[in-house]
Amino acid sequence: MTLFEPADAPAPSLGPVTRVRATVAYDGRGFSGFAPNVGVRTVGGVLAEAIGKVLGHQVDITCAGRTDAGVHAWGQVISFDARSEALDLDGLARRVNKMLAPTVVVRDLGEAADDFDARFSARSRRYRYLVLNRPVPDPFLAHMSWHVPQPLDLAAMQLACDPFIGEHDFAAFCRRPKRSDGEEASLVRRVTEATWIDEGDGRLRFEIEAQAFCHQMVRSIVGLLVAVGHGKRRAGEVRGVIASGDRNRAAPLAPGQGLMLWEVGYD
Amino acid sequence: MTLFEPADAPAPSLGPVTRVRATVAYDGRGFSGFAPNVGVRTVGGVLAEAIGKVLGHQVDITCAGRTDAGVHAWGQVISFDARSEALDLDGLARRVNKMLAPTVVVRDLGEAADDFDARFSARSRRYRYLVLNRPVPDPFLAHMSWHVPQPLDLAAMQLACDPFIGEHDFAAFCRRPKRSDGEEASLVRRVTEATWIDEGDGRLRFEIEAQAFCHQMVRSIVGLLVAVGHGKRRAGEVRGVIASGDRNRAAPLAPGQGLMLWEVGYD
Repeated sequence: MTLFEPADAPAPSLGPVTRVRATVAYDGRGFSGFAPNVGVRTVGGVLAEAIGKVLGHQVDITCAGRTDAGVHAWGQVISFDARSEALDLDGLARRVNKMLAPTVVVRDLGEAADDFDARFSARSRRYRYLVLNRPVPDPFLAHMSWHVPQPLDLAAMQLACDPFIGEHDFAAFCRRPKRSDGEEASLVRRVTEATWIDEGDGRLRFEIEAQAFCHQMVRSIVGLLVAVGHGKRRAGEVRGVIASGDRNRAAPLAPGQGLMLWEVGYD
Repeated sequence: MTLFEPADAPAPSLGPVTRVRATVAYDGRGFSGFAPNVGVRTVGGVLAEAIGKVLGHQVDITCAGRTDAGVHAWGQVISFDARSEALDLDGLARRVNKMLAPTVVVRDLGEAADDFDARFSARSRRYRYLVLNRPVPDPFLAHMSWHVPQPLDLAAMQLACDPFIGEHDFAAFCRRPKRSDGEEASLVRRVTEATWIDEGDGRLRFEIEAQAFCHQMVRSIVGLLVAVGHGKRRAGEVRGVIASGDRNRAAPLAPGQGLMLWEVGYD
Protein backbone atom coordinates (compact mmCIF):
# COMPACT_ATOMS: atom_id res chain seq x y z
CA MET A 1 0.00 0.00 0.00
CA THR A 2 1.64 3.22 -1.13
CA LEU A 3 0.23 6.23 0.58
CA PHE A 4 1.72 9.28 -1.05
CA GLU A 5 3.03 8.45 -4.48
CA PRO A 6 1.62 6.56 -7.40
CA ALA A 7 3.19 3.13 -7.63
CA ASP A 8 5.57 4.10 -10.41
CA ALA A 9 6.96 7.25 -8.74
CA PRO A 10 10.70 7.23 -7.94
CA ALA A 11 11.51 6.28 -4.33
CA PRO A 12 12.01 9.42 -2.22
CA SER A 13 15.42 9.88 -0.64
CA LEU A 14 15.16 8.30 2.79
CA GLY A 15 17.35 8.16 5.88
CA PRO A 16 18.94 5.16 7.56
CA VAL A 17 16.70 2.25 8.56
CA THR A 18 15.61 2.01 12.22
CA ARG A 19 13.66 -1.02 13.44
CA VAL A 20 10.88 0.24 15.71
CA ARG A 21 8.89 -1.72 18.29
CA ALA A 22 5.64 -0.52 19.83
CA THR A 23 3.01 -1.79 22.26
CA VAL A 24 -0.50 -1.04 21.09
CA ALA A 25 -3.91 -1.24 22.80
CA TYR A 26 -7.18 -1.14 20.90
CA ASP A 27 -10.91 -1.54 21.18
CA GLY A 28 -11.58 -4.12 18.46
CA ARG A 29 -15.17 -2.96 17.80
CA GLY A 30 -15.51 -1.47 14.36
CA PHE A 31 -12.42 -3.23 13.02
CA SER A 32 -12.26 -6.27 10.77
CA GLY A 33 -9.40 -7.63 12.84
CA PHE A 34 -5.74 -6.62 12.77
CA ALA A 35 -4.35 -7.77 9.43
CA PRO A 36 -4.49 -5.04 6.75
CA ASN A 37 -6.97 -6.03 4.07
CA VAL A 38 -8.23 -4.18 1.02
CA GLY A 39 -11.62 -2.52 1.40
CA VAL A 40 -12.11 -3.10 5.12
CA ARG A 41 -11.08 -1.14 8.21
CA THR A 42 -8.43 -3.02 10.15
CA VAL A 43 -6.27 -2.06 13.12
CA GLY A 44 -3.09 -2.74 11.11
CA GLY A 45 -4.46 -0.69 8.24
CA VAL A 46 -5.19 2.44 10.27
CA LEU A 47 -1.87 2.09 12.14
CA ALA A 48 0.12 1.77 8.90
CA GLU A 49 -1.66 4.78 7.46
CA ALA A 50 -1.07 6.96 10.55
CA ILE A 51 2.57 5.92 11.00
CA GLY A 52 3.17 6.33 7.26
CA LYS A 53 1.74 9.85 7.35
CA VAL A 54 4.06 10.89 10.18
CA LEU A 55 7.18 9.25 8.70
CA GLY A 56 6.45 10.32 5.14
CA HIS A 57 6.93 6.83 3.72
CA GLN A 58 5.01 3.60 3.46
CA VAL A 59 5.46 1.12 6.33
CA ASP A 60 4.88 -2.61 6.59
CA ILE A 61 3.70 -3.56 10.04
CA THR A 62 4.33 -6.95 11.65
CA CYS A 63 2.26 -7.87 14.71
CA ALA A 64 2.64 -10.51 17.43
CA GLY A 65 -0.96 -11.72 17.25
CA ARG A 66 -3.30 -11.31 14.30
CA THR A 67 -6.48 -10.68 16.29
CA ASP A 68 -9.83 -11.40 14.62
CA ALA A 69 -12.75 -9.04 14.03
CA GLY A 70 -14.02 -7.52 17.28
CA VAL A 71 -11.14 -8.90 19.37
CA HIS A 72 -9.39 -6.38 21.62
CA ALA A 73 -5.77 -5.91 22.63
CA TRP A 74 -4.08 -4.35 25.60
CA GLY A 75 -0.52 -5.50 24.83
CA GLN A 76 -0.34 -6.12 21.08
CA VAL A 77 3.27 -5.67 19.90
CA ILE A 78 4.17 -4.41 16.44
CA SER A 79 7.40 -3.81 14.59
CA PHE A 80 8.22 -1.81 11.45
CA ASP A 81 11.08 0.02 9.78
CA ALA A 82 11.37 3.81 9.88
CA ARG A 83 13.65 5.45 7.36
CA SER A 84 13.76 9.08 8.44
CA GLU A 85 16.69 11.41 9.01
CA ALA A 86 16.43 12.79 12.56
CA LEU A 87 13.82 10.22 13.63
CA ASP A 88 11.80 11.49 16.62
CA LEU A 89 10.28 8.41 18.24
CA ASP A 90 8.49 10.24 21.07
CA GLY A 91 7.00 12.61 18.52
CA LEU A 92 5.95 9.66 16.36
CA ALA A 93 4.01 8.02 19.22
CA ARG A 94 2.44 11.32 20.20
CA ARG A 95 1.32 12.16 16.68
CA VAL A 96 -0.07 8.69 16.00
CA ASN A 97 -2.04 8.85 19.25
CA LYS A 98 -3.35 12.27 18.24
CA MET A 99 -4.75 10.65 15.10
CA LEU A 100 -6.06 7.34 16.48
CA ALA A 101 -6.68 7.57 20.25
CA PRO A 102 -8.65 6.57 22.17
CA THR A 103 -9.77 3.69 19.89
CA VAL A 104 -6.19 2.68 19.07
CA VAL A 105 -3.43 3.78 21.45
CA VAL A 106 0.35 3.44 21.19
CA ARG A 107 1.29 2.67 24.81
CA ASP A 108 5.03 2.77 24.22
CA LEU A 109 7.34 2.95 21.23
CA GLY A 110 11.09 2.71 20.89
CA GLU A 111 14.06 1.55 18.86
CA ALA A 112 14.58 -2.22 18.68
CA ALA A 113 17.47 -4.45 17.58
CA ASP A 114 17.78 -4.73 13.79
CA ASP A 115 16.64 -8.35 13.86
CA PHE A 116 13.66 -7.79 16.18
CA ASP A 117 10.42 -9.06 14.69
CA ALA A 118 7.18 -8.64 16.65
CA ARG A 119 5.95 -12.01 15.40
CA PHE A 120 8.98 -14.27 15.15
CA SER A 121 10.87 -12.93 18.18
CA ALA A 122 7.88 -13.49 20.47
CA ARG A 123 8.35 -16.25 23.08
CA SER A 124 4.82 -16.24 24.52
CA ARG A 125 1.37 -14.80 24.04
CA ARG A 126 -1.16 -14.34 26.83
CA TYR A 127 -4.86 -13.90 26.10
CA ARG A 128 -7.65 -13.03 28.48
CA TYR A 129 -11.30 -13.88 27.97
CA LEU A 130 -14.03 -12.34 30.10
CA VAL A 131 -17.27 -14.19 30.76
CA LEU A 132 -19.92 -12.14 32.55
CA ASN A 133 -21.95 -14.70 34.48
CA ARG A 134 -24.83 -12.65 35.88
CA PRO A 135 -28.58 -12.71 35.28
CA VAL A 136 -28.59 -9.29 33.59
CA PRO A 137 -26.10 -7.68 31.18
CA ASP A 138 -23.75 -4.84 32.13
CA PRO A 139 -23.71 -1.65 30.01
CA PHE A 140 -20.02 -1.07 30.80
CA LEU A 141 -18.71 -4.57 30.09
CA ALA A 142 -21.02 -5.67 27.24
CA HIS A 143 -18.55 -4.78 24.47
CA MET A 144 -15.70 -6.65 26.12
CA SER A 145 -17.30 -9.77 27.56
CA TRP A 146 -19.55 -12.71 26.79
CA HIS A 147 -22.73 -12.39 28.81
CA VAL A 148 -23.83 -15.83 30.04
CA PRO A 149 -26.94 -15.44 32.24
CA GLN A 150 -27.30 -19.10 33.28
CA PRO A 151 -25.24 -20.16 36.33
CA LEU A 152 -21.91 -21.78 35.38
CA ASP A 153 -20.08 -24.47 37.31
CA LEU A 154 -16.72 -22.79 37.72
CA ALA A 155 -15.11 -25.79 39.46
CA ALA A 156 -15.91 -27.99 36.45
CA MET A 157 -14.61 -25.31 34.08
CA GLN A 158 -11.39 -25.10 36.09
CA LEU A 159 -10.98 -28.87 36.00
CA ALA A 160 -11.52 -28.87 32.23
CA CYS A 161 -8.55 -26.51 31.78
CA ASP A 162 -5.94 -29.06 32.82
CA PRO A 163 -5.91 -31.21 29.66
CA PHE A 164 -4.97 -28.16 27.57
CA ILE A 165 -1.66 -27.69 29.40
CA GLY A 166 1.33 -29.05 27.50
CA GLU A 167 2.08 -29.72 23.86
CA HIS A 168 -0.84 -30.90 21.72
CA ASP A 169 -2.08 -30.89 18.16
CA PHE A 170 -4.92 -28.37 18.43
CA ALA A 171 -6.62 -29.35 15.16
CA ALA A 172 -9.95 -29.76 17.01
CA PHE A 173 -9.78 -26.13 18.16
CA CYS A 174 -8.45 -24.28 15.11
CA ARG A 175 -9.33 -23.19 11.66
CA ARG A 176 -6.72 -24.92 9.50
CA PRO A 177 -4.88 -22.28 7.49
CA LYS A 178 -4.48 -22.65 3.73
CA ARG A 179 -0.86 -22.75 2.69
CA SER A 180 0.14 -21.67 -0.77
CA ASP A 181 2.58 -24.59 -1.11
CA GLY A 182 -0.18 -27.14 -0.50
CA GLU A 183 1.53 -28.45 2.67
CA GLU A 184 -0.49 -28.78 5.85
CA ALA A 185 0.55 -26.25 8.49
CA SER A 186 1.35 -27.71 11.90
CA LEU A 187 -1.26 -27.05 14.56
CA VAL A 188 0.96 -28.31 17.38
CA ARG A 189 1.18 -25.73 20.14
CA ARG A 190 2.52 -25.71 23.71
CA VAL A 191 0.14 -24.23 26.29
CA THR A 192 1.89 -23.19 29.51
CA GLU A 193 -1.09 -21.84 31.45
CA ALA A 194 -4.88 -22.12 31.27
CA THR A 195 -6.92 -21.02 34.25
CA TRP A 196 -10.10 -19.26 35.38
CA ILE A 197 -9.95 -16.37 37.83
CA ASP A 198 -13.11 -15.44 39.73
CA GLU A 199 -12.98 -11.64 39.87
CA GLY A 200 -16.23 -11.45 41.81
CA ASP A 201 -19.65 -10.07 40.78
CA GLY A 202 -19.93 -12.77 38.13
CA ARG A 203 -16.78 -11.72 36.30
CA LEU A 204 -15.05 -14.96 35.27
CA ARG A 205 -11.72 -14.29 33.59
CA PHE A 206 -9.95 -16.97 31.60
CA GLU A 207 -6.20 -16.60 31.15
CA ILE A 208 -4.26 -18.67 28.71
CA GLU A 209 -0.62 -18.53 27.70
CA ALA A 210 1.22 -20.39 24.96
CA GLN A 211 4.28 -19.89 22.83
CA ALA A 212 1.84 -19.27 19.98
CA PHE A 213 -1.81 -19.90 19.12
CA CYS A 214 -3.54 -21.07 15.97
CA HIS A 215 -6.47 -19.26 14.43
CA GLN A 216 -9.63 -19.20 16.65
CA MET A 217 -7.94 -21.45 19.23
CA VAL A 218 -8.73 -19.40 22.36
CA ARG A 219 -12.37 -18.77 21.40
CA SER A 220 -12.81 -22.46 20.62
CA ILE A 221 -11.31 -23.51 23.96
CA VAL A 222 -13.49 -21.00 25.85
CA GLY A 223 -16.54 -22.25 23.94
CA LEU A 224 -15.89 -25.79 25.18
CA LEU A 225 -15.08 -24.70 28.73
CA VAL A 226 -18.33 -22.73 28.99
CA ALA A 227 -20.24 -25.73 27.60
CA VAL A 228 -18.69 -27.69 30.49
CA GLY A 229 -19.81 -24.91 32.87
CA HIS A 230 -23.36 -25.27 31.55
CA GLY A 231 -23.24 -29.03 32.12
CA LYS A 232 -23.75 -29.69 28.40
CA ARG A 233 -20.27 -31.24 28.21
CA ARG A 234 -18.15 -32.97 30.83
CA ALA A 235 -14.65 -31.99 31.95
CA GLY A 236 -13.66 -35.61 31.41
CA GLU A 237 -14.41 -35.34 27.68
CA VAL A 238 -11.84 -32.64 27.00
CA ARG A 239 -8.83 -34.92 26.68
CA GLY A 240 -10.67 -36.98 24.08
CA VAL A 241 -11.73 -33.93 22.09
CA ILE A 242 -8.11 -32.76 21.91
CA ALA A 243 -6.91 -36.23 20.87
CA SER A 244 -9.60 -36.54 18.18
CA GLY A 245 -8.34 -33.58 16.18
CA ASP A 246 -11.96 -33.22 15.06
CA ARG A 247 -13.49 -29.74 15.03
CA ASN A 248 -16.97 -31.26 15.09
CA ARG A 249 -16.29 -32.55 18.58
CA ALA A 250 -15.48 -29.08 19.93
CA ALA A 251 -18.20 -26.56 20.88
CA PRO A 252 -19.39 -23.36 19.16
CA LEU A 253 -16.84 -20.52 19.26
CA ALA A 254 -17.06 -18.02 22.12
CA PRO A 255 -17.86 -14.56 20.70
CA GLY A 256 -14.92 -12.35 19.72
CA GLN A 257 -15.75 -9.37 21.91
CA GLY A 258 -14.82 -11.22 25.13
CA LEU A 259 -11.26 -11.86 23.95
CA MET A 260 -8.23 -9.67 24.55
CA LEU A 261 -4.59 -10.11 23.58
CA TRP A 262 -3.16 -9.20 26.94
CA GLU A 263 0.62 -9.52 26.74
CA VAL A 264 3.39 -10.78 24.49
CA GLY A 265 6.66 -12.04 25.96
CA TYR A 266 10.12 -11.64 24.39
CA ASP A 267 13.56 -12.74 25.56
CA MET B 1 -46.14 11.81 26.30
CA THR B 2 -48.91 9.51 25.11
CA LEU B 3 -47.66 6.50 23.30
CA PHE B 4 -50.64 4.63 21.91
CA GLU B 5 -53.66 6.83 21.75
CA PRO B 6 -54.28 10.33 20.51
CA ALA B 7 -54.60 12.74 23.43
CA ASP B 8 -58.38 12.85 23.21
CA ALA B 9 -58.98 9.09 23.13
CA PRO B 10 -60.97 7.66 26.05
CA ALA B 11 -58.79 6.12 28.79
CA PRO B 12 -58.51 2.35 28.32
CA SER B 13 -59.83 0.21 31.13
CA LEU B 14 -56.87 -0.48 33.39
CA GLY B 15 -56.15 -2.61 36.42
CA PRO B 16 -55.28 -1.56 39.97
CA VAL B 17 -52.32 0.78 40.46
CA THR B 18 -49.01 -0.75 41.57
CA ARG B 19 -46.10 1.51 42.46
CA VAL B 20 -42.95 -0.04 40.92
CA ARG B 21 -39.33 0.64 41.83
CA ALA B 22 -36.38 -0.33 39.64
CA THR B 23 -32.60 0.03 39.67
CA VAL B 24 -31.23 0.95 36.29
CA ALA B 25 -27.69 1.07 34.84
CA TYR B 26 -26.85 2.84 31.61
CA ASP B 27 -24.03 3.96 29.38
CA GLY B 28 -24.79 7.67 29.03
CA ARG B 29 -23.14 8.04 25.61
CA GLY B 30 -25.66 8.78 22.94
CA PHE B 31 -28.23 10.14 25.40
CA SER B 32 -29.11 13.76 26.07
CA GLY B 33 -29.27 13.00 29.78
CA PHE B 34 -32.04 11.28 31.72
CA ALA B 35 -34.99 13.64 31.73
CA PRO B 36 -37.46 12.99 28.88
CA ASN B 37 -37.36 15.89 26.44
CA VAL B 38 -39.10 16.39 23.13
CA GLY B 39 -36.99 15.72 20.05
CA VAL B 40 -33.93 14.26 21.79
CA ARG B 41 -33.01 10.75 22.89
CA THR B 42 -32.95 10.51 26.67
CA VAL B 43 -32.62 7.57 29.06
CA GLY B 44 -35.95 8.40 30.68
CA GLY B 45 -37.54 8.67 27.25
CA VAL B 46 -36.45 5.23 26.02
CA LEU B 47 -37.32 3.67 29.39
CA ALA B 48 -40.82 5.19 29.41
CA GLU B 49 -41.36 4.01 25.87
CA ALA B 50 -40.18 0.45 26.55
CA ILE B 51 -42.07 0.09 29.86
CA GLY B 52 -45.17 1.65 28.27
CA LYS B 53 -45.04 -0.83 25.42
CA VAL B 54 -44.93 -3.80 27.80
CA LEU B 55 -47.62 -2.47 30.15
CA GLY B 56 -49.84 -1.21 27.37
CA HIS B 57 -50.28 2.23 28.91
CA GLN B 58 -48.32 5.44 29.22
CA VAL B 59 -46.01 5.74 32.26
CA ASP B 60 -44.49 8.73 33.99
CA ILE B 61 -41.06 7.92 35.33
CA THR B 62 -39.52 9.58 38.36
CA CYS B 63 -35.77 9.19 38.88
CA ALA B 64 -33.47 9.72 41.86
CA GLY B 65 -30.85 11.70 39.94
CA ARG B 66 -31.43 13.58 36.69
CA THR B 67 -28.07 12.80 35.10
CA ASP B 68 -26.77 15.13 32.37
CA ALA B 69 -25.81 14.31 28.79
CA GLY B 70 -23.09 11.66 28.62
CA VAL B 71 -23.24 10.88 32.36
CA HIS B 72 -23.51 7.20 33.27
CA ALA B 73 -25.37 5.36 36.00
CA TRP B 74 -24.86 2.06 37.76
CA GLY B 75 -27.49 2.51 40.45
CA GLN B 76 -30.07 4.98 39.15
CA VAL B 77 -33.41 4.34 40.83
CA ILE B 78 -36.73 4.99 39.14
CA SER B 79 -40.36 4.70 40.17
CA PHE B 80 -43.58 4.59 38.17
CA ASP B 81 -47.13 3.31 38.37
CA ALA B 82 -48.24 0.17 36.57
CA ARG B 83 -51.93 -0.35 36.04
CA SER B 84 -52.21 -3.87 34.67
CA GLU B 85 -54.35 -6.77 35.72
CA ALA B 86 -52.07 -9.76 36.47
CA LEU B 87 -48.94 -7.63 36.57
CA ASP B 88 -45.81 -9.76 35.91
CA LEU B 89 -42.89 -7.78 37.30
CA ASP B 90 -40.19 -10.33 36.41
CA GLY B 91 -41.55 -10.46 32.88
CA LEU B 92 -41.59 -6.66 32.71
CA ALA B 93 -37.89 -6.41 33.62
CA ARG B 94 -36.99 -9.18 31.19
CA ARG B 95 -38.90 -7.65 28.31
CA VAL B 96 -37.54 -4.15 28.90
CA ASN B 97 -34.00 -5.56 28.98
CA LYS B 98 -34.68 -7.40 25.75
CA MET B 99 -35.50 -4.05 24.15
CA LEU B 100 -32.83 -1.83 25.69
CA ALA B 101 -29.86 -3.90 26.92
CA PRO B 102 -26.94 -3.63 27.03
CA THR B 103 -27.03 0.20 26.72
CA VAL B 104 -29.76 0.52 29.36
CA VAL B 105 -30.24 -2.35 31.80
CA VAL B 106 -32.88 -2.90 34.49
CA ARG B 107 -30.82 -4.50 37.27
CA ASP B 108 -33.78 -5.19 39.54
CA LEU B 109 -37.44 -4.31 39.63
CA GLY B 110 -40.16 -4.88 42.18
CA GLU B 111 -43.25 -3.60 43.92
CA ALA B 112 -42.76 -0.63 46.25
CA ALA B 113 -44.92 1.01 48.92
CA ASP B 114 -47.66 3.22 47.49
CA ASP B 115 -45.91 6.37 48.71
CA PHE B 116 -42.44 5.42 47.43
CA ASP B 117 -40.99 8.08 45.15
CA ALA B 118 -37.54 7.49 43.61
CA ARG B 119 -36.71 11.17 44.01
CA PHE B 120 -38.36 12.34 47.21
CA SER B 121 -37.88 9.14 49.23
CA ALA B 122 -34.12 9.12 48.55
CA ARG B 123 -31.95 9.79 51.61
CA SER B 124 -28.56 9.91 49.85
CA ARG B 125 -26.94 9.88 46.44
CA ARG B 126 -23.43 8.65 45.77
CA TYR B 127 -21.56 9.62 42.62
CA ARG B 128 -18.22 8.36 41.32
CA TYR B 129 -15.92 10.25 39.02
CA LEU B 130 -12.98 8.54 37.31
CA VAL B 131 -9.87 10.49 36.37
CA LEU B 132 -7.37 8.55 34.27
CA ASN B 133 -4.01 10.07 35.16
CA ARG B 134 -1.62 8.39 32.73
CA PRO B 135 0.52 9.73 29.89
CA VAL B 136 -1.53 7.93 27.22
CA PRO B 137 -5.30 7.31 26.93
CA ASP B 138 -6.95 3.92 27.47
CA PRO B 139 -9.25 2.52 24.76
CA PHE B 140 -11.35 0.70 27.37
CA LEU B 141 -11.83 3.54 29.84
CA ALA B 142 -11.97 6.54 27.49
CA HIS B 143 -15.77 6.71 27.40
CA MET B 144 -16.07 6.58 31.18
CA SER B 145 -13.19 8.70 32.44
CA TRP B 146 -11.47 12.05 32.11
CA HIS B 147 -8.00 11.50 30.70
CA VAL B 148 -5.52 13.86 32.37
CA PRO B 149 -2.02 13.15 31.05
CA GLN B 150 -0.09 15.60 33.28
CA PRO B 151 0.88 14.26 36.73
CA LEU B 152 -1.59 15.21 39.46
CA ASP B 153 -0.79 15.87 43.13
CA LEU B 154 -3.22 13.43 44.73
CA ALA B 155 -2.32 14.49 48.29
CA ALA B 156 -3.29 18.08 47.51
CA MET B 157 -6.52 16.90 45.83
CA GLN B 158 -7.35 14.83 48.90
CA LEU B 159 -6.73 17.80 51.19
CA ALA B 160 -8.97 19.97 49.03
CA CYS B 161 -11.88 17.57 49.60
CA ASP B 162 -12.26 18.40 53.30
CA PRO B 163 -13.92 21.83 52.98
CA PHE B 164 -16.78 20.27 50.99
CA ILE B 165 -17.89 18.07 53.89
CA GLY B 166 -20.87 19.41 55.80
CA GLU B 167 -23.71 21.75 54.95
CA HIS B 168 -22.92 24.61 52.57
CA ASP B 169 -24.57 26.84 50.02
CA PHE B 170 -23.10 25.40 46.81
CA ALA B 171 -23.95 28.39 44.60
CA ALA B 172 -20.33 28.56 43.39
CA PHE B 173 -20.59 24.99 42.08
CA CYS B 174 -24.05 24.84 40.55
CA ARG B 175 -26.15 26.07 37.72
CA ARG B 176 -28.94 27.95 39.46
CA PRO B 177 -32.25 26.49 38.33
CA LYS B 178 -35.01 28.74 37.02
CA ARG B 179 -38.16 28.45 39.09
CA SER B 180 -41.50 29.24 37.57
CA ASP B 181 -42.63 31.13 40.70
CA GLY B 182 -39.69 33.54 40.46
CA GLU B 183 -38.31 32.42 43.85
CA GLU B 184 -34.66 31.45 44.13
CA ALA B 185 -34.21 27.72 44.74
CA SER B 186 -32.02 26.83 47.70
CA LEU B 187 -28.56 25.51 46.79
CA VAL B 188 -27.79 24.43 50.34
CA ARG B 189 -26.70 20.80 50.41
CA ARG B 190 -25.15 18.50 53.01
CA VAL B 191 -22.12 16.53 51.78
CA THR B 192 -21.34 13.50 53.95
CA GLU B 193 -18.34 12.12 52.08
CA ALA B 194 -15.83 13.40 49.52
CA THR B 195 -12.67 11.43 48.91
CA TRP B 196 -10.20 10.21 46.30
CA ILE B 197 -9.34 6.53 45.99
CA ASP B 198 -6.14 5.56 44.19
CA GLU B 199 -7.10 2.41 42.29
CA GLY B 200 -3.60 2.02 40.84
CA ASP B 201 -2.38 2.37 37.25
CA GLY B 202 -3.32 6.03 37.25
CA ARG B 203 -6.99 5.37 38.02
CA LEU B 204 -8.04 8.08 40.47
CA ARG B 205 -11.61 7.62 41.63
CA PHE B 206 -13.51 10.39 43.36
CA GLU B 207 -16.43 9.39 45.56
CA ILE B 208 -18.92 11.89 46.87
CA GLU B 209 -22.12 11.39 48.83
CA ALA B 210 -24.78 13.89 49.79
CA GLN B 211 -28.45 13.90 50.65
CA ALA B 212 -28.93 15.55 47.27
CA PHE B 213 -26.88 17.45 44.68
CA CYS B 214 -27.59 20.55 42.62
CA HIS B 215 -27.15 20.68 38.87
CA GLN B 216 -23.51 20.25 37.70
CA MET B 217 -22.29 20.20 41.31
CA VAL B 218 -20.11 17.06 41.14
CA ARG B 219 -18.49 18.00 37.82
CA SER B 220 -17.78 21.49 39.14
CA ILE B 221 -16.20 20.14 42.34
CA VAL B 222 -14.08 17.65 40.37
CA GLY B 223 -13.01 20.46 38.02
CA LEU B 224 -11.70 22.47 40.97
CA LEU B 225 -10.05 19.45 42.64
CA VAL B 226 -8.19 18.55 39.44
CA ALA B 227 -7.09 22.20 39.09
CA VAL B 228 -5.63 21.79 42.60
CA GLY B 229 -3.94 18.57 41.44
CA HIS B 230 -2.36 20.48 38.56
CA GLY B 231 -1.07 23.14 40.95
CA LYS B 232 -3.15 25.82 39.20
CA ARG B 233 -5.24 26.28 42.34
CA ARG B 234 -4.39 25.68 46.00
CA ALA B 235 -6.24 23.43 48.45
CA GLY B 236 -6.34 26.38 50.84
CA GLU B 237 -8.49 28.35 48.39
CA VAL B 238 -11.40 25.93 48.39
CA ARG B 239 -13.08 27.17 51.57
CA GLY B 240 -13.09 30.71 50.18
CA VAL B 241 -14.54 29.60 46.83
CA ILE B 242 -17.41 27.83 48.60
CA ALA B 243 -18.05 30.85 50.83
CA SER B 244 -18.01 33.27 47.88
CA GLY B 245 -20.99 31.66 46.17
CA ASP B 246 -19.42 32.91 42.95
CA ARG B 247 -19.32 30.53 39.99
CA ASN B 248 -16.54 32.60 38.42
CA ARG B 249 -14.24 31.55 41.24
CA ALA B 250 -14.75 27.83 40.57
CA ALA B 251 -12.91 25.99 37.76
CA PRO B 252 -14.12 24.67 34.39
CA LEU B 253 -16.48 21.68 34.66
CA ALA B 254 -15.00 18.20 34.51
CA PRO B 255 -16.33 16.41 31.40
CA GLY B 256 -19.56 14.45 31.79
CA GLN B 257 -18.26 11.07 30.62
CA GLY B 258 -16.17 10.56 33.80
CA LEU B 259 -19.23 10.79 36.04
CA MET B 260 -21.43 7.95 37.24
CA LEU B 261 -24.43 7.90 39.55
CA TRP B 262 -23.31 4.98 41.67
CA GLU B 263 -25.92 4.38 44.36
CA VAL B 264 -29.02 5.90 45.89
CA GLY B 265 -29.86 5.30 49.53
CA TYR B 266 -33.40 4.93 50.96
CA ASP B 267 -34.62 4.31 54.49
